[in-house]
Amino acid sequence: MELLSKINSPEDLRKLNTGQLPQVVEEVRTFILDTISQKGGHFASNLGAVELTVALHYVFDTPHDKIVWDVGHQSYPHKILTGRRDQFHTIRQKDGLAGFTARNESPYDHFGAGHASTALSSALGMAEAMRLKKDPHMAIAVVGDGSLTGGLVYEAMNNAGHIPAKNLLFLFNDNEMSIDPNVGALSQFINRTVTNPGYNKLRKDLVSILSAISEHGLPVQEIAKRVRGSVKSFFTPGMLFECFGFRYLGPINGHDIFEIIDTLNFVKQAGPEGGPYLIHALTTKGRGYKLAEDNPVKYHGVGAFKICDGIQSKPKKIDNYQDVFADTLIELAKDDPRILGITAAMPSGTGLVKFQKEFPDRCYDVGIAEAHAVLFAAGLATEGMRPVTAIYSTFLQRAFDQVIHDVGIQNLPVIFCLDRAGMVGADGATHQGAYDLSYLRSVPNFVVMAPKDENELRRMLLTAVRHDKAPTAIRYPRGPVVGVPREAEIRPLKIGEGELIQATADSVDVTLVAIGYAVQSALEAAERLKEEGHSVAVINARFVKPLDKKLLGEWISASRLVVTIEENTVVGGFGSAILEFMSQQQLQQPTLVLGMPDSPVEHATQAEQRERYGIDGPGIARQTLAQLQRLDEMSAVQSLFRRSVESELEAETN
Amino acid sequence: MELLSKINSPEDLRKLNTGQLPQVVEEVRTFILDTISQKGGHFASNLGAVELTVALHYVFDTPHDKIVWDVGHQSYPHKILTGRRDQFHTIRQKDGLAGFTARNESPYDHFGAGHASTALSSALGMAEAMRLKKDPHMAIAVVGDGSLTGGLVYEAMNNAGHIPAKNLLFLFNDNEMSIDPNVGALSQFINRTVTNPGYNKLRKDLVSILSAISEHGLPVQEIAKRVRGSVKSFFTPGMLFECFGFRYLGPINGHDIFEIIDTLNFVKQAGPEGGPYLIHALTTKGRGYKLAEDNPVKYHGVGAFKICDGIQSKPKKIDNYQDVFADTLIELAKDDPRILGITAAMPSGTGLVKFQKEFPDRCYDVGIAEAHAVLFAAGLATEGMRPVTAIYSTFLQRAFDQVIHDVGIQNLPVIFCLDRAGMVGADGATHQGAYDLSYLRSVPNFVVMAPKDENELRRMLLTAVRHDKAPTAIRYPRGPVVGVPREAEIRPLKIGEGELIQATADSVDVTLVAIGYAVQSALEAAERLKEEGHSVAVINARFVKPLDKKLLGEWISASRLVVTIEENTVVGGFGSAILEFMSQQQLQQPTLVLGMPDSPVEHATQAEQRERYGIDGPGIARQTLAQLQRLDEMSAVQSLFRRSVESELEAETN
Repeated sequence: MELLSKINSPEDLRKLNTGQLPQVVEEVRTFILDTISQKGGHFASNLGAVELTVALHYVFDTPHDKIVWDVGHQSYPHKILTGRRDQFHTIRQKDGLAGFTARNESPYDHFGAGHASTALSSALGMAEAMRLKKDPHMAIAVVGDGSLTGGLVYEAMNNAGHIPAKNLLFLFNDNEMSIDPNVGALSQFINRTVTNPGYNKLRKDLVSILSAISEHGLPVQEIAKRVRGSVKSFFTPGMLFECFGFRYLGPINGHDIFEIIDTLNFVKQAGPEGGPYLIHALTTKGRGYKLAEDNPVKYHGVGAFKICDGIQSKPKKIDNYQDVFADTLIELAKDDPRILGITAAMPSGTGLVKFQKEFPDRCYDVGIAEAHAVLFAAGLATEGMRPVTAIYSTFLQRAFDQVIHDVGIQNLPVIFCLDRAGMVGADGATHQGAYDLSYLRSVPNFVVMAPKDENELRRMLLTAVRHDKAPTAIRYPRGPVVGVPREAEIRPLKIGEGELIQATADSVDVTLVAIGYAVQSALEAAERLKEEGHSVAVINARFVKPLDKKLLGEWISASRLVVTIEENTVVGGFGSAILEFMSQQQLQQPTLVLGMPDSPVEHATQAEQRERYGIDGPGIARQTLAQLQRLDEMSAVQSLFRRSVESELEAETN
Repeated sequence: MELLSKINSPEDLRKLNTGQLPQVVEEVRTFILDTISQKGGHFASNLGAVELTVALHYVFDTPHDKIVWDVGHQSYPHKILTGRRDQFHTIRQKDGLAGFTARNESPYDHFGAGHASTALSSALGMAEAMRLKKDPHMAIAVVGDGSLTGGLVYEAMNNAGHIPAKNLLFLFNDNEMSIDPNVGALSQFINRTVTNPGYNKLRKDLVSILSAISEHGLPVQEIAKRVRGSVKSFFTPGMLFECFGFRYLGPINGHDIFEIIDTLNFVKQAGPEGGPYLIHALTTKGRGYKLAEDNPVKYHGVGAFKICDGIQSKPKKIDNYQDVFADTLIELAKDDPRILGITAAMPSGTGLVKFQKEFPDRCYDVGIAEAHAVLFAAGLATEGMRPVTAIYSTFLQRAFDQVIHDVGIQNLPVIFCLDRAGMVGADGATHQGAYDLSYLRSVPNFVVMAPKDENELRRMLLTAVRHDKAPTAIRYPRGPVVGVPREAEIRPLKIGEGELIQATADSVDVTLVAIGYAVQSALEAAERLKEEGHSVAVINARFVKPLDKKLLGEWISASRLVVTIEENTVVGGFGSAILEFMSQQQLQQPTLVLGMPDSPVEHATQAEQRERYGIDGPGIARQTLAQLQRLDEMSAVQSLFRRSVESELEAETN
């Protein structure tokens, strides 16, 4: 790390001569490999972006020129070069560096991210602000080809070309991958034109065709035909961008540091008056680590692994929820040809990849395009299909209008399977599944469920597939299942029926009403409360909407304190649903609403996050006990007050 | 109406010979003009789509071939030809036809809409379902050029070309307009290439150029240069779509019924194996009514008007909320150069058009691209600007992820001004501003306000612009302001400070806690309650987040019944915020939560909608009185029970 160890800011990098840059590239790559192989993190996308990052900071005057990284999972080289090398080993850990860019982490991180396709829009905002302030610098958005499957990028291009934002550079990092292989007609088109052997020749010159034509003295009609043919094959990736008013440069080799620097210098010298520019750079995900180049899906995000053989240290011993989801869906789809699977560029993450292998004709990867995914499912549902739309909780936010306007209002039986609901761990604030219970239950007609374990997930999936009357959503956590014995037969649930798991008496000190993952934590808390001598009931609500009014009404009436527990924000979530129900029924028991806080939850392990916000077993028990004590104190005060009033009255009477 | 009067379904239309179709077109146009000039409704977009509609139903086997109308405000000719001619005069009225397509209205309405850019995605779902079911029909999406500013269309094209959906037809209705003139680089590009006088010639043949080249015997280099030049000018609107794998046909004249029929027939004969197809039809918004052709913005949606002079019958006597918003923004922007205005294709509807005239360099119309609008604003905010993003409540749903992921989590001081919050009247279920309080208050860091009248809107706007610490949202209703005297000086509010408007005693039978428009209704209800002899307090909460804990705590404690009133769904909205607050404070007063229902609210006037759901003055009073009576009955039962227990105890003691 001869050079890298002296680079504490891009200023230091810019002091080097160009000839030293290949060594910097090499050292950054080695540094990432060494650290991530020990600590885990996003990997392949970062290896692919090293040259681009070095060149950007070398040519441009960062942070005055502003780089915005789309998604941000390729920002490790950027973090390393902008003063965070020494903390790099803490990445994605509690109180360590974030896994994505983060405004509160560095003045070089102009915009945070985590979700895809946002960088061009925000960079455009910066570019315009700079223009208005007469700041002569540029805004640069680095966007992968995966993000081009998201419609936001077109909205931004359309606006940027219209303004036109002359001080904007769109650096298109084209590696033919999202997390999984990139999909979509456009990707095929770009790939086809770029890899066409004739393309580069044609791009540079039409001369040879024309000479051939004139040498052979073909008739005019024939010439026209041939030229038109050549024009067709002249289609270039640049045309798309030029339709939107961008000046296209490329494609360039995104691993040739000198070619990149030349191109960036051209833009810099043409200056903030000649754009918007688009540089098309071809890169390889996993570049420089053979195993990752060969299998970029596996090495997109990794745990610790051995550099020599690439073997990740923690072999999976227990299924994750997505595995149970996928296995069950396959089981159900065998008997029901209406069942289809839909993913928005997450076949691996959602587990649908298994379903895809089993039913290639019944599974759709639509790209990073959640809004389209939901609408597409809605269209399928109108024709009697049972589309199962598997999207992470955090990403369904991107299709909220489709959830309301297209599915909810029209009451179409689309099935939503929301993985990564609740605390998500190392991905941090942008990825928490903290809002879905709040926003889904506000939509008319939806049935909203969350399973307490993997058997219940299986039952809910069957319930959803059979429920032809309305849209259904099932949300389940990131990570391993509870590990209960798998029931062979899948039994459907009755819509809106909850479950009393335990009750130590007919009328109790406290009823814990929990949903989803939180049921497990509630059970743990119940043990502790019983040890403290309290009578306890534990209800697994199963349904956030509709609620089990009978069961809840009965147990809430019979409780001194009602505690609701959910892995969702406490604002408008499951707890609020219980409060609304109590208001309607005129139930006035004291309540305690536990859940995720009304503030962003930063990266840490899931266990650390649960502990921090008091929604693990011990936290629930502690808060419940404190509340019971407050109630005791309040009633002591009240009875003291009552007695003193009574004795005063008595004294007066006497 | 010689022909039209006999057309009760597309079957009837298809019995005519082609030569009769111009007359059908003429009659449909006259029918629309006659009806809408009397009843009001969407107008110009429908006049522009008559030929396309007649041709589609004539050539295709509807409803087996499925037409999906994007937005649906151009579906009047379709409604008239599909058996709804006789009810057409009821359009947009209570219990009448919907203003958009609606699945529950006709088997010819395969998908409902209201929001833009959704048709291609849902039609793609239908096309795929048909393919899987081996149904040989086609799905047809009719999409205006305005909708092409929305990213969803690109997501759908990318997926359609990838599948590829061979039975899909994208009918691109290009009139260079959204509601307001269309914006964006793409629109400019298409317009430029289509209107280029050389374009059609070039498109048909390159022959003349080549002949000229060979005649003049120019050197090869020169030839290459010229050919390359001609290739550049050869750019066609079709190229964009061909990048996504669509087969492009056009542009055709969308008012030449024979040309349209020829083109549709070509597609029909090429059949559901040759697509996806795109037909590019050029149309004129307002076609056939000169005044509308000349001013399509004014005639996009109309009230009743005189056909002879086009004058709409109800001159506006009082400002709408958007006028006060715009005037105030202009006032504030004069002193604060950081203030910028942003609209997503609604400069007229939001009132921003006034601001745009005053500050052309500080106002952005980004197209029908709400997600981009919010991200763009977020980018501007990072650079110290104060972007005021004016979006209808219902359309902000389309940017929910940006609200959470980009603005909320990063705590950027973007200002959201949400017009059309609450009941919206004739636009119906898809346009109700029914969810914003629920979804906005669940997002960390947001300040959420709603004014009780126009003076308070002015104060809130100043408050928002000055609040540099966090994102702020102000939501206000569709339609006229209250009409209070305008305060000259705009005074800022203290964040989170509500207002006690009246209280008839220190401790009251009922406290009405209202927000926004509902404050006016609550005041009306209070009068009625007082007439019935009840003591009443009325609180204007002003802030949904953060709540005024002091004021609310005090008055809730002093009330026998707490009634919350809002024009937002009762699920997770303002009422729930009050319930959450009461849970936290261990306040156990009986509550009644009034608001919009947990079901779609269909079209009618706003007054009719408020009456139907009991949130006008009389409805609030009626429900409050009923609840007070229930409480009386309950306490009567309780005291009866207490007395009987006491007398039993006494008897035992004696």
